[in-house]
Amino acid sequence: MPQSFNHLNQNNDIHMVNISDKPTTHRTAIASAKVCLNQQTLDLVKQEKLNKGNVLNTARIAGILAAKQTSNLIPLCHPVPLTKINIDIEFIETTTSTQQGLKITATCQTNSKTGVEMEALTAVTHCALTIYDMCKVQQKDIVIDGILLEKKTGGKSGDWQR
Amino acid sequence: MPQSFNHLNQNNDIHMVNISDKPTTHRTAIASAKVCLNQQTLDLVKQEKLNKGNVLNTARIAGILAAKQTSNLIPLCHPVPLTKINIDIEFIETTTSTQQGLKITATCQTNSKTGVEMEALTAVTHCALTIYDMCKVQQKDIVIDGILLEKKTGGKSGDWQR
Amino acid sequence: MPQSFNHLNQNNDIHMVNISDKPTTHRTAIASAKVCLNQQTLDLVKQEKLNKGNVLNTARIAGILAAKQTSNLIPLCHPVPLTKINIDIEFIETTTSTQQGLKITATCQTNSKTGVEMEALTAVTHCALTIYDMCKVQQKDIVIDGILLEKKTGGKSGDWQR
Amino acid sequence: MPQSFNHLNQNNDIHMVNISDKPTTHRTAIASAKVCLNQQTLDLVKQEKLNKGNVLNTARIAGILAAKQTSNLIPLCHPVPLTKINIDIEFIETTTSTQQGLKITATCQTNSKTGVEMEALTAVTHCALTIYDMCKVQQKDIVIDGILLEKKTGGKSGDWQR
Amino acid sequence: MPQSFNHLNQNNDIHMVNISDKPTTHRTAIASAKVCLNQQTLDLVKQEKLNKGNVLNTARIAGILAAKQTSNLIPLCHPVPLTKINIDIEFIETTTSTQQGLKITATCQTNSKTGVEMEALTAVTHCALTIYDMCKVQQKDIVIDGILLEKKTGGKSGDWQR
Amino acid sequence: MPQSFNHLNQNNDIHMVNISDKPTTHRTAIASAKVCLNQQTLDLVKQEKLNKGNVLNTARIAGILAAKQTSNLIPLCHPVPLTKINIDIEFIETTTSTQQGLKITATCQTNSKTGVEMEALTAVTHCALTIYDMCKVQQKDIVIDGILLEKKTGGKSGDWQR
Repeated sequence: MPQSFNHLNQNNDIHMVNISDKPTTHRTAIASAKVCLNQQTLDLVKQEKLNKGNVLNTARIAGILAAKQTSNLIPLCHPVPLTKINIDIEFIETTTSTQQGLKITATCQTNSKTGVEMEALTAVTHCALTIYDMCKVQQKDIVIDGILLEKKTGGKSGDWQR
Repeated sequence: MPQSFNHLNQNNDIHMVNISDKPTTHRTAIASAKVCLNQQTLDLVKQEKLNKGNVLNTARIAGILAAKQTSNLIPLCHPVPLTKINIDIEFIETTTSTQQGLKITATCQTNSKTGVEMEALTAVTHCALTIYDMCKVQQKDIVIDGILLEKKTGGKSGDWQR
Repeated sequence: MPQSFNHLNQNNDIHMVNISDKPTTHRTAIASAKVCLNQQTLDLVKQEKLNKGNVLNTARIAGILAAKQTSNLIPLCHPVPLTKINIDIEFIETTTSTQQGLKITATCQTNSKTGVEMEALTAVTHCALTIYDMCKVQQKDIVIDGILLEKKTGGKSGDWQR
Repeated sequence: MPQSFNHLNQNNDIHMVNISDKPTTHRTAIASAKVCLNQQTLDLVKQEKLNKGNVLNTARIAGILAAKQTSNLIPLCHPVPLTKINIDIEFIETTTSTQQGLKITATCQTNSKTGVEMEALTAVTHCALTIYDMCKVQQKDIVIDGILLEKKTGGKSGDWQR
Repeated sequence: MPQSFNHLNQNNDIHMVNISDKPTTHRTAIASAKVCLNQQTLDLVKQEKLNKGNVLNTARIAGILAAKQTSNLIPLCHPVPLTKINIDIEFIETTTSTQQGLKITATCQTNSKTGVEMEALTAVTHCALTIYDMCKVQQKDIVIDGILLEKKTGGKSGDWQR
Repeated sequence: MPQSFNHLNQNNDIHMVNISDKPTTHRTAIASAKVCLNQQTLDLVKQEKLNKGNVLNTARIAGILAAKQTSNLIPLCHPVPLTKINIDIEFIETTTSTQQGLKITATCQTNSKTGVEMEALTAVTHCALTIYDMCKVQQKDIVIDGILLEKKTGGKSGDWQR
């Protein structure tokens, strides 16, 4: 297990790490996030989805566009040519009011020298923030929770699943 | 209480809402987020902070830069001239391992026709994602949690505190 | 009538013209564009609109986001804080096959020292390009036509309507 | 012939389509657009071209820069490493006043998994919008017309010419 | 005289300083830079300027576009609505070969709560880098020198001239 | 030796040159720049470095982020997937007051069809501008000097060292 940060060089200064010699391989990452909504807001989103779905589509596009900007948003990320971005949004309805809301799952793929975990995480995050933005007049105490990596494949460190 | 989305126009299509007639006033927003880290990762960040603090400073800058890009990242946000962005990062140490980690708090201010909640939320989110990126070699199961608005002041809808 | 380009300075070099002394006033601009589609493609878009409308919503968001980037895309445009962006898309069905398709109309508003014609034109253009992108597998000979200013109000040069 | 949109996934939600398994091949695209100008404006542009050509050069650079931003402007486009962008602008002088103006032609090339039609179309569009911006003080009723793909080569769907 | 960095807050962490209470006033800044070129390269640029001037115009546009991006490039800069950007480029010919080349001077203006020194410096820098890029095939040892503020007016700290 | 600009096509108009047929090879570039500071400012930066180093870390990140944006900032640069960016900052202390300050050195690497000189130069430039920004309250007459290429390897034109 590493004892230090790979984003720090021999002087302990940050750098964008050298991946020149890593092979170009196929890599995937799946990340997810939750937007916790109260019953009223959730009903409103559900109703709008039945009608048109503009709210969720807008959020999906925000996630897709942000994923393509990852290396400009997260300072030490390498630019990676994404070959696929898919975002699914499902309704979570439970008897526990703090758990209900929307679950966002993003899948990113590339053929590159480095992985796309941050791209998938960036996708779900911006999708969630956009839903927050569109619902914030309805509900001021929205919480975005559980932003995490579900799974990744490819690369030297191998496959990993939560 | 609104019965529909203010980001949908009379045709139920999305639009960037008209704020032409709103007065320019002073507005603030405070948002927060948590990055949940295991003991080993948390110790590593703490040690690096004592040494240099490059990891947390890098995350802070990512948050500041992203806040200024909010209207390009969140499709229906208005461009707002931010007059202040401050990001605090504190260590949370509890006996509950799922709660320990870093708490990020961002304060944004503007003199504008609309509020800066999304700017503060964007700041904490990108700060958290950048910490994730720098720690992900150490710990693959990091979770970003509790992205929420703490407080806002100014504007027609008045002050609000969680 | 001007005899030269206001974007050229006394040396005939390009510059971003000085608007420091112009008053901040309310300004609007409406622009439109057409995407000419064959019957089959038009039917497909219509059917998708009835089903979900993701295609047209995606195009609308592309237009809104691009309008906010106008001063970064058109080199000599001043940055302008847009206070409203609305994009309408209507189906044009005629017996003349070369005229049928989609008509896009964008309305932009600001309170600023300069007008928002270029913002409205940028909005319709990117909306049209995004429709083109999503339909190009169906039809390779799509044409985007008639990008023009419909109307503007506010500013020293006064109101104007096509 | 496809019966649906390739940008919609199995849930009929938008996605950035998977091109991971497509081979990297050489691809070209040529697009064009017209800027319709009245005689007076056309004469002014012609005279400035003889003198310096700053107007047309500025437009050309706007087109080149925009082409490189295509995947950030058109939501479902993949990032593509352009290997060539060339923009030609020629004067169209006819007896038909509605046809005279400038014809812009952009050629883009890449070695990539997907084509560059949208890049070439984005190039001509921004070139045209920039000419519009610089001429709009002279003439308020400028029209940008005939944005279309002239030709493409490479890729699975093969070569195509208008 | 300040004893510490105004970009560090009370915790000695970086922040974007609070300018909420500063008045909006008219501000100008003039910055300059030199691109040192050998005789052969300088002659080539001069000849191209006589012919068309595309090289210098391209550099000027790069400077203007970059100035508008200053707050996204320099992390702690506030977004400022520039009201004027002008860039002059003159030939410096001396008997001292290390001094000859091009002198770039940028003038920026705004009505804002903070100054535009960084905008003017960003303009000259990107103008210089673009000239470097276009001349680097001719001459590999080009040096960009003397990037500095010539003058600023407006704001609490008052006018200043080098 | 070339007699003209490779960024001008056969019509003497600017273009982004065709690199489609160039092989993808490993390339490196090292560039440097100096920020000339007076003794008081230099002492302040040194003291802050001993304390935390936030000033130099902020500058380093600005340089890294800008390097990834090179093809959007320098109009005729090709997009290049950087595989490494490292920035070193050292203190220069001499008895000659005009020479003292900070020396910034950036190393960029890629596997690409074209070199990364402009990326390394963009990195040092933005690093220097960011130091300028953070020190300008202390010292108004800071000068950024000596922006130059130290060394490059790879590519058809071969290795080169200053």
